[in-house]
This record gives sequence, structure tokens and C-alpha cells, in this order.
Amino acid sequence: MIAQLISIGNEITSGQTVDTNSAWLAQRLAEFGVPCVRHQTIADEIEPIRHAIDDAAGRSDLVIITGGLGPTPDDLTRQALADAMGVELEFHEPSLQHIEAYFAQRKRRMHEGNRQQAYLPAGSDALHNERGTAPGIRARLHNADIYCVPGVPSEMRDMFAVHIRPQLEKQSGGSAMRIGILRTIGVSESEIGERLKDLMRRDRNPTVGTSAADLVISIRVVAHGPTRDIAQSSLDADLSEIRVRLGNVIFGENDDTVESAVGKLLIERQLTIATAESCTGGLVAKRLTDLPGSSAYLRSGFITYANESKTDLLGVPASLIAEHGAVSESVAKAMAENCRTRSRTDIALSTTGIAGPTGGTPTKPVGLVYVGIATTDETVVKELRLGDNITRDQVRERTVRILLNMLRLRLLRRADHDRNPS
Amino acid sequence: MIAQLISIGNEITSGQTVDTNSAWLAQRLAEFGVPCVRHQTIADEIEPIRHAIDDAAGRSDLVIITGGLGPTPDDLTRQALADAMGVELEFHEPSLQHIEAYFAQRKRRMHEGNRQQAYLPAGSDALHNERGTAPGIRARLHNADIYCVPGVPSEMRDMFAVHIRPQLEKQSGGSAMRIGILRTIGVSESEIGERLKDLMRRDRNPTVGTSAADLVISIRVVAHGPTRDIAQSSLDADLSEIRVRLGNVIFGENDDTVESAVGKLLIERQLTIATAESCTGGLVAKRLTDLPGSSAYLRSGFITYANESKTDLLGVPASLIAEHGAVSESVAKAMAENCRTRSRTDIALSTTGIAGPTGGTPTKPVGLVYVGIATTDETVVKELRLGDNITRDQVRERTVRILLNMLRLRLLRRADHDRNPS
Repeated sequence: MIAQLISIGNEITSGQTVDTNSAWLAQRLAEFGVPCVRHQTIADEIEPIRHAIDDAAGRSDLVIITGGLGPTPDDLTRQALADAMGVELEFHEPSLQHIEAYFAQRKRRMHEGNRQQAYLPAGSDALHNERGTAPGIRARLHNADIYCVPGVPSEMRDMFAVHIRPQLEKQSGGSAMRIGILRTIGVSESEIGERLKDLMRRDRNPTVGTSAADLVISIRVVAHGPTRDIAQSSLDADLSEIRVRLGNVIFGENDDTVESAVGKLLIERQLTIATAESCTGGLVAKRLTDLPGSSAYLRSGFITYANESKTDLLGVPASLIAEHGAVSESVAKAMAENCRTRSRTDIALSTTGIAGPTGGTPTKPVGLVYVGIATTDETVVKELRLGDNITRDQVRERTVRILLNMLRLRLLRRADHDRNPS
Repeated sequence: MIAQLISIGNEITSGQTVDTNSAWLAQRLAEFGVPCVRHQTIADEIEPIRHAIDDAAGRSDLVIITGGLGPTPDDLTRQALADAMGVELEFHEPSLQHIEAYFAQRKRRMHEGNRQQAYLPAGSDALHNERGTAPGIRARLHNADIYCVPGVPSEMRDMFAVHIRPQLEKQSGGSAMRIGILRTIGVSESEIGERLKDLMRRDRNPTVGTSAADLVISIRVVAHGPTRDIAQSSLDADLSEIRVRLGNVIFGENDDTVESAVGKLLIERQLTIATAESCTGGLVAKRLTDLPGSSAYLRSGFITYANESKTDLLGVPASLIAEHGAVSESVAKAMAENCRTRSRTDIALSTTGIAGPTGGTPTKPVGLVYVGIATTDETVVKELRLGDNITRDQVRERTVRILLNMLRLRLLRRADHDRNPS
């Protein structure tokens, strides 16, 4: 079974909006073992949309179309699908009732254009949309199942969960399939491949695959079985085995991020944290506060971009900066320690480095960064050499990810130590 | 003339990487008045790539293909293009010499796979690649010009500038075309449409169009003329007229951002700045330090996420917080003023608000934010009500953009005042 995706809209073909729906859908389909061989993005024009649908349906088993279901004249997905199927649009009374109820409930006036959302290609099914006015559509063309869902990401994801995912589960070879994803950081994809070699054999059930995105390597396990329970227990066995083999490099599962893993640990252990940032300019604190509820752990942060502000705000001795330079192990250490004292927190993080593109020297090149962690026990500082062939943005992003992962590992080790004091 | 784009690579079809090349290329093509009607993303498989090229070439005048030109067995663009053209790959000696020179210069060993990069479809031209090993390709198929360029964004942009842009300039109707883009913030697209109504008539030369992305409205002016000079002067006349009509809502042109506009003003005026952030958690400082050279103006920042840290770090009286709440005009004012004093800068910015999704109350709902600017003269605080139907991320992003734009307008007014003291 192979899939194709189609996104509709001038805002995407013109480059004003970057299409993120396709990447999200492709990842979900991959979790069911369904590869996506093509994404198409088509402008709001009827003939090109019809052609794209026809061509995709002729060359795959599943086509998911996002966008073009709105109430304005340039929303053409319904008509283009009807044209590709060689049928007319037909009025669908229950859909109109849903649309009318949607507006009535919100005490808003329904526009005339919304009526067109209740027209569907003859022979297709309406898919209920809990979060918006536009019903989705399910149809058959050539040998493919066609799904049309709204382009608004939240509505699209909801429709996928309600209408498409159950279908994929059902179609997965007449048997049950269960999927699990583990997220790791700190080892290479090839090293993980080495450690899971036997599990990653192609003819094995469950199948185990890896994929890399920036510094995070994800491990996908897909288990098939005659029943859901059997598939689930063979999935669970593999996940446990992988957890044992990889240990702490696994930071979470599914949608977890390094910062959400750190946030969870800080909340569990009721620890508070503060940040002292130079080259990252606020990005460490920004990431730690991306999560709702982060006020439970993040108390404060210092951005000491200028040398004088390292001295004024954090009391880093000017003589220390003069002797070692602002980008040095000593300064990273002093920043973390003084930040912790001044913020009265359990933990403090520090960063100082050369993000580039200018400012590098032969001894201190672009990409040289010192990151520090101060706790009640001790302070550790690590030197990173991120290379000068990456952008300013990448230097800053990777610094944050590496530092947060160092903190995560420390928090885990500390918990081990608390349990087994030597 | 219409264009289609094709991106090649499993990392994109699988959703691991979001394709940003297509949006970038579509924007550049739009600047030449060339609409993009379709983007396709194709997995690393020969037949689907061949089909996509053939189909795109049959339905447009210009096809730009990114990716699949590397040295490994899954780089299939060259072969797929040859198949679509019905020709063989031919060895191209100058390309091999370029590849060998590339490795020799970097003192690196050339791999056997790199040899395949010197094979091109018979009848096509090699396009010199200054920044990498893979030469690009120019060919004709059906009635379309085909360009193949590397998928690495920096190489792709360079190849576009060197090989495709000049061709577009030449082909623009046998006459010259000049394009200018102005970026605005602070008024709606419909209000700009109202103020530029006469200039936006469709039958006019230059043509003037608008597009919106988040809070930024961009105005694109495309001037045609029998010569480059005539087109340029009619472009300049329109740009001047629009600048007069819209004034300070224009913050820049082409790739300028609100933060780059602010950075430029701060450097010009030799002003220093500091930040005191609560709900934005470091994002204001992060944006101000996105730009190389930002150490000229950003000295320091405080992230005072907890109430106590507003008191400890910035000396905001606990009684003030108790009386008005942390999300209040008074606290935003005290944060900005105390931040400026403690940082010894010319300007300080502050933010305090409810980013959500939780933490809102009927009187202080999610999306309520106070932003402050303290200068030597005075402190201003503005209340923002960003609505509760937007994500935590959007509340934070919009707060930063609005605050930086307030600062920009203040810096401009101050300059006017300095020039014309009353």
C-alpha cells in the first residue's frame, strides 16, 4: 500500500505559507508502514487540481487531500474531485444542518458561501468535522481511497484521528497493528543501528526502523498480530528490550521533546532552575518556558550578552574575563554558579560561545561554546565544538539541545544515586 | 509563463524534513511575475521522478527540480531526467575536472560515487556549482525549460542567483522588469488596499499587490518597461509614492524583518538596550540576538518568570505585585524602568502576560499581555488583548513582534523630534 498527499492553496504554491501538513501526515502514515511517494501542492485552479487528483489516484492506493474545502469561490476541492470522478456535486442535507448548527451555537450569522460546503461529489461520503464548518469527504477513484480534509492544521489532525487512522488500523493486512516510537539523543543513528541490529532485520515482526532529525534519533516499532492484544504484547516486548539496551539515551516517546522530558523531571523532583545565557541570548529559557506549567520550575534567567553585564548582573569578576576571555570554561562556571546563588534555585544553566558568522579566531572558532550546569553538589562545564560550517541559528539551537540533554542525564543519575547511595 | 517545482528526497516525502526550498523559490518566481501552479515532492525512486518531470514539463513553461544530484545510489535526478527526455546519460569531462578540483582544494579524497555527478542527459547543459560538487543541469523537455539544482538550501539559492535569475530577467517578455518589495506592520491588508487602491488596478504598470503573513503585510511592485532604466524609474516612482502614503508603517524592504529594522536603528543611533521578560521567557532577547553584530546594542536581559524573581532581580516591590497582580500595567512599568537602571542601558523593554493555555481568568484572560518601553525620557506601557483562540506560541510570538514594532516607531519619532525640536 502506498500513499500520496495533495495540499491545495495559493498561499502555499506562492510560498507565503510553508506546508507543514504534508510532513505531519507522512510521519503518521509511516507509523502504519504506509510509505508516501509523492506530495503535491496545487494552486486554487480547478483543472490543475483535477489533474493532480486523477494522477495521484491512478498511481497509489490512498490519497489524502488537505485544503480547498472553505466557503469562498476559490475553494475548489469539491468540484475538482467531482470532475476527476466524472460525477456532479450533490446537495447533502445533514451537512447543511451541521453547518447551520455550528453557526447557531456560536451565535454567528451563516454566510451564503457556507451552503456550498454541503455539496459533495455524487457517490462520496461526508466526514463529520467536530471543529469547523467544512465536512470532509471520502471517495473512491481508480483503485484508491480518497480523503479530503480541511487545511487548518488542528482540524486536519482531528479529522485524521477520527476518520483516517481507524481505517488504516482496519486495513493493516486484516490483522491488528500496534506502533510505538521512542526518541533518543546523544548517540548516532549508526550506533543505534549497531545496538539494535538483530531487531532491525527486515523479515522480522515487529519491524524496527530509525530516522534522524537534527540531533534526535527516533526508533519506530511496528508490531503485527492476529489480534490487537497479541500485537500489543509483541510491541511491548520489543519496546522493553530496546529500553534495556539503550537506557538513558531514550528521553521519551511519541511527541516528547528534550525540553518536555527535562520539564517533567524537574516537576517530579520539585526542583527549581535558572539560566545565565550569553551566545544563546535567551533561547534556553525560551525553550524551558515553551511548555504550559513551566512556572513550576523556571524561576528566572539572566541574559548577559555584554562582558560588563556578566560582571554587573552575575558578579563574574572582570579580571576572570580579562584573563580567560568571555568564551571560556572559567566564565561558564562562574556564570552558572553565581546565577544559581542569585536566583536561589536548585540548578542553574549557563552558555557562552561564538555563534558566528563573525567573531571567530583560530583559537576560538565559530561554533566553540561552553555550557555549564551548577547544582548544590557541584558545577560541570563542557566544551562544545559545533563546527564553523553551520549557521548562527544552528549553533544556538544545538547548544540548547545538548545542554538540556546534559541536564536530563544529570537528573537521572542523581535519582539513581538517591535510590542507591554508596 | 507558468512554473512548477519538484523536490526530490525520501527525507521530505517521509516527513522528516519540511521542504522550505519550494516556498523560497515560489517567492522568487513571483517577484518575476511567474506564478507557480504546482510543487511536487517525490521519493528517491526512479519511475515516480521520471513521471513527475514528464508531467510537470508537459503542463508548464519552467520546471525547477531541487535535490537528487548527490553522489550516492539513491540520487536519481540525472537518470530520471534522461529517461523523461528519452536519452542516455553522457560523461561530461569539465564537470569531472570541477569535482576533482573541489576535493583537491579541500585536501579531501574524492569518492568513486562522485564520478556519477559528471554524467548528464545527452543534449543538456552543465551548470557550474561554486559551492559544492554537484553540477546543476539545464535541459528542454516538451515546451519547458528544466533546471536541476542541489537540494542544500545555500547551494540552491546560489545556483538560482547565478543560473536561473538572469534567464528570468532576459525572458520577461522581451522587455525589462524590475521588482521591489516593501514590508509593513501595524495596519491591516484591507486598509493598505484602501490607501493604495488606484495603484492596485490590475491594468496598470507597475502592478502592485499585497500579501499577509502573520502581522506583516508585504507590498510587491512589479514594473515593466522597454528598457531596464525605464522600468527602474517607474518602479522607483511607485515605491516613493507608496512610502509617502504609508509612512512609518513600512519597516523595510526585501528580506528585512521587524527585528532587523530595530537592530539597524539601534546601531545607527548608538543606543543600548536590555530586556525584562516574564511571559515571553527570553524570546524578546532571542529575537534581538538573532542578528550577527547584535552585541553592539543588546547588553543584558532578565527573565523574571516567578513573582519573587521580579522582586529579587528587578526590585519590583512585592506589594505592587500583591496589589495589581504580576500581569498589570504597574508591574510592566516597574520591570522596564528597573531593568533600564540595573542594566545601565538607554532603553529597556518589558513583557508580562498570560500566554496560556491555562492560567486565564475572566478579568485576566489568556492573551492579555502588558508590554513596556522605558527610555531616558519616559516609560510607556501598552495593554494587548491577543484573544484566547490562539496558541501559547502565537501569544508569545505576537507579543514580541508588536513590542519590537512599538520600539521601532518610538525610535523613528525620537529621530524626528531630534531633527525638529519644538
